[in-house]
Amino acid sequence: MEYFGGIETGGTKVNCMVASDPEHVLAYERIPTTTPDKTIGDILAFFHRFQAEHEVKLETIGLGSFGPVDLNPNSPTYGYITSTPKPGWQNAPLLPAIAKELDIPFIFDNDVNAAAIGEHLWGAAQDSQTFMYITIGTGVGGGIFTNGAAIHGLVHPEVGHICMPHDLQKDPFPGWCPFHADCFEGLTAGPAMEKRWNTRAENLAPDHPAWELEAWYIASALRTFICCYSPERIILGGGVMQQETLFPMVRKFTLELLNGYVQSPAILESIDSYIVPPGLGDKAGIYGCIAMARLFKEGKI
Amino acid sequence: MEYFGGIETGGTKVNCMVASDPEHVLAYERIPTTTPDKTIGDILAFFHRFQAEHEVKLETIGLGSFGPVDLNPNSPTYGYITSTPKPGWQNAPLLPAIAKELDIPFIFDNDVNAAAIGEHLWGAAQDSQTFMYITIGTGVGGGIFTNGAAIHGLVHPEVGHICMPHDLQKDPFPGWCPFHADCFEGLTAGPAMEKRWNTRAENLAPDHPAWELEAWYIASALRTFICCYSPERIILGGGVMQQETLFPMVRKFTLELLNGYVQSPAILESIDSYIVPPGLGDKAGIYGCIAMARLFKEGKI
Repeated sequence: MEYFGGIETGGTKVNCMVASDPEHVLAYERIPTTTPDKTIGDILAFFHRFQAEHEVKLETIGLGSFGPVDLNPNSPTYGYITSTPKPGWQNAPLLPAIAKELDIPFIFDNDVNAAAIGEHLWGAAQDSQTFMYITIGTGVGGGIFTNGAAIHGLVHPEVGHICMPHDLQKDPFPGWCPFHADCFEGLTAGPAMEKRWNTRAENLAPDHPAWELEAWYIASALRTFICCYSPERIILGGGVMQQETLFPMVRKFTLELLNGYVQSPAILESIDSYIVPPGLGDKAGIYGCIAMARLFKEGKI
Repeated sequence: MEYFGGIETGGTKVNCMVASDPEHVLAYERIPTTTPDKTIGDILAFFHRFQAEHEVKLETIGLGSFGPVDLNPNSPTYGYITSTPKPGWQNAPLLPAIAKELDIPFIFDNDVNAAAIGEHLWGAAQDSQTFMYITIGTGVGGGIFTNGAAIHGLVHPEVGHICMPHDLQKDPFPGWCPFHADCFEGLTAGPAMEKRWNTRAENLAPDHPAWELEAWYIASALRTFICCYSPERIILGGGVMQQETLFPMVRKFTLELLNGYVQSPAILESIDSYIVPPGLGDKAGIYGCIAMARLFKEGKI
């Protein structure tokens, strides 16, 4: 059996793992995200400890990071975190600082692309060639898989920052994104819910009107994404989506907002299996890093 | 020299061509789009006439059609026009009806994907691996190229139907899309301009406030597309974009709406070469059909 390393660096915690696949995990640890130096030191300590304790060769390591990150292999800052508002992390050389201390080939992407690849290999998108993984939590992000790979492009997609319909008479909350106010993230992420309703999202009862408004905004974004990518499936994860009352409302509003325009049975007749939670649950990101490492080893990405 | 056929079927006219590339065109004809039977007959007559008059072998033919179309090669209705509102064309078997009369291999896509491929091979996107071609005319559509091919997905993208910000106090026009009222197409296509201002777009003076509003809506859509695809370039074509005063305003508003979020010199420092007209002008679609045929012959698509 071949084993792979996975590192998922998030804004508040880092997941480190050694595994062959989700059924065969040899080591797993969560580390708090603090300063770059301390966090990178903790990540390296995890792998050094693993190598001291196990006679197991790691084939490759997949690193999936919060962003924005530099994904251009020809860039001098490839693998760096770039313009994040997170204190201390602007221009942090994440990949090079880790890779130079471990003699193992690395594959690098952002956390949502990693999660999408994990869902493709082992989760809810195994039968989809064009699909989208979206996380709605402290922030909003998404990874899109099409034509055999995640979309990178100029930088990488930032689907939390699309333009949104916003009727200020129905919802006077201006949005909280420091760049765009009422973008998708600015209207729907956890902090937006907290600021709009003056309490944390998890304190809002399932029948609170907050959830219907939230579902309508999410469905508006999904209509846009369906028009942009024509995905075969949409996977919705992240902390906000833990409120399960959201899924049926998001599906209903998405159908209403598309209004029959996209004539596909996958949408018109099977919306329950079209908009779904992650098959890998809250481990989509870290399993996705393992998946990236495996596909990299196999020459598929 | 190898020669290829191209057929671009639009809502009002069909372009037929035999060419090797834009510098070597052997035959070109425009045919009005009437009923499917008459139009398909006229297309076949063009190729039969060409073959009678020339000792030239056509390697392959590229067919790019207005949509929606069925792009799934495994579907029994592959190559059909599907749910178009255009009278008589619903479920028209466009590709099979043409292909069965000509003993030449066909490659099929929608018209905007064809135009994108043409711009990639010979136009404004020769150096771009992820880019978008948008046409704003009687309708709004777009083709997106990434990871080596146009995005198809479940059906194909329909970027004219994304959700848009729409302040009814500033612009009380409700939009004219029969499905979504104020989607991108419903707010910005030629018929939207005509209904909003009670005159055809080409009659509006370059300094009429209509163009500033139009540019702001187009820029709002571009912000969404930049967040969705992270394109390396955006090509804007179609009849509405013939008003050249639009380009500088669209670029300015796109920068304002992104508000510095996407930290790329291609956007921040070179917007004039980031948002551009088609390199192939109003022939992007038909040259794109020739380009598809060529790439198909070469096994690249």
